[in-house]
Amino acid sequence: MKTIHEIINVSTNCRCEMLDITTKIASVVSESKIANGLVTVFTPHTTAAITINENADPDVTHDMIMTLEEMLPKNRPGYKHDEGNSDAHMKSSFFGCSETVILNCGKMQLGTWQGIYFCEFDGPRSRKVNVQIIGE
Amino acid sequence: MKTIHEIINVSTNCRCEMLDITTKIASVVSESKIANGLVTVFTPHTTAAITINENADPDVTHDMIMTLEEMLPKNRPGYKHDEGNSDAHMKSSFFGCSETVILNCGKMQLGTWQGIYFCEFDGPRSRKVNVQIIGE
Amino acid sequence: MKTIHEIINVSTNCRCEMLDITTKIASVVSESKIANGLVTVFTPHTTAAITINENADPDVTHDMIMTLEEMLPKNRPGYKHDEGNSDAHMKSSFFGCSETVILNCGKMQLGTWQGIYFCEFDGPRSRKVNVQIIGE
Repeated sequence: MKTIHEIINVSTNCRCEMLDITTKIASVVSESKIANGLVTVFTPHTTAAITINENADPDVTHDMIMTLEEMLPKNRPGYKHDEGNSDAHMKSSFFGCSETVILNCGKMQLGTWQGIYFCEFDGPRSRKVNVQIIGE
Repeated sequence: MKTIHEIINVSTNCRCEMLDITTKIASVVSESKIANGLVTVFTPHTTAAITINENADPDVTHDMIMTLEEMLPKNRPGYKHDEGNSDAHMKSSFFGCSETVILNCGKMQLGTWQGIYFCEFDGPRSRKVNVQIIGE
Repeated sequence: MKTIHEIINVSTNCRCEMLDITTKIASVVSESKIANGLVTVFTPHTTAAITINENADPDVTHDMIMTLEEMLPKNRPGYKHDEGNSDAHMKSSFFGCSETVILNCGKMQLGTWQGIYFCEFDGPRSRKVNVQIIGE
């Protein structure tokens, strides 16, 4: 059994954004020489998330961000946290800070239309993504 | 260490539905002869999800689907994606496209009332679920 | 490859609560003597969840619970499940019943402000959390 751990840097451009990082993750997988196992993609930030969703029509991420901003607006009466980003913490827990992808015969088992997204909810910022591959 | 990868086929019957696939996953686990490790259940579709929730009273999944449809109706002013299923993409990222279950002494460590569900958000369709077991 | 499986007991104090269990998980990791691999934290309950979020300012969890209770109130017209906790089942699937953390050089790769939370949505109760470490 082998484990490989890499950290990827990501720069975001606005407060709420979904960045496709599939190619970056695929490079780590390819360099790892691990053929079968699990790929864990994890962000160490509490106002960001990792999700897997459609990578074909950019209107999908537009609609997703619009929905998130309407369901979880930046301000809500009663918020106490004085950084003013409690909505971003909620979005992070709703989408989750990690995704696990199956690795089989050297290939991540993503669907045809699936991409791995870094989700920024309190940008723009410089962010990190941890990638670990476990297998053989 | 061993890894086993199987693909399960699922048929859904309506637009929004939760199908209990626990027995199908348990069969893959049993045939794998792996006793200790992780079971990853992953759907390669972007308008579906995998979740773990109550398997006893069918009223629970009724209430969950009702809540999802009220919180995320099919149409929302401003949606641009012309397939008309942006709500389904949102539901997919909220529930997540995978679950990981602990495998110990040959048994998935699910609670008494936990079942593994394939969640359809844009059916009816023929769908796939990838199952991978890693361990020994 | 080694796998270690432990069960942690948790007591909750009110209906909706986020309890920081990071120290308890870190103890299991430390005793396992596994340096590189994956830590899976899984709750076997269908009205609870595991999430990772900010551990510094307690106002964050206050704001998150307030938001959850406003978005998913206990009662919703049309709920059929007669235990009266359908909202808690929804919260469970939104946050998810598990988290997977990368283990590298003997340390969980959590961000500076990340804590692992047991989320109670139908307490107070005595609850369990399964922890499995796989690696070497």
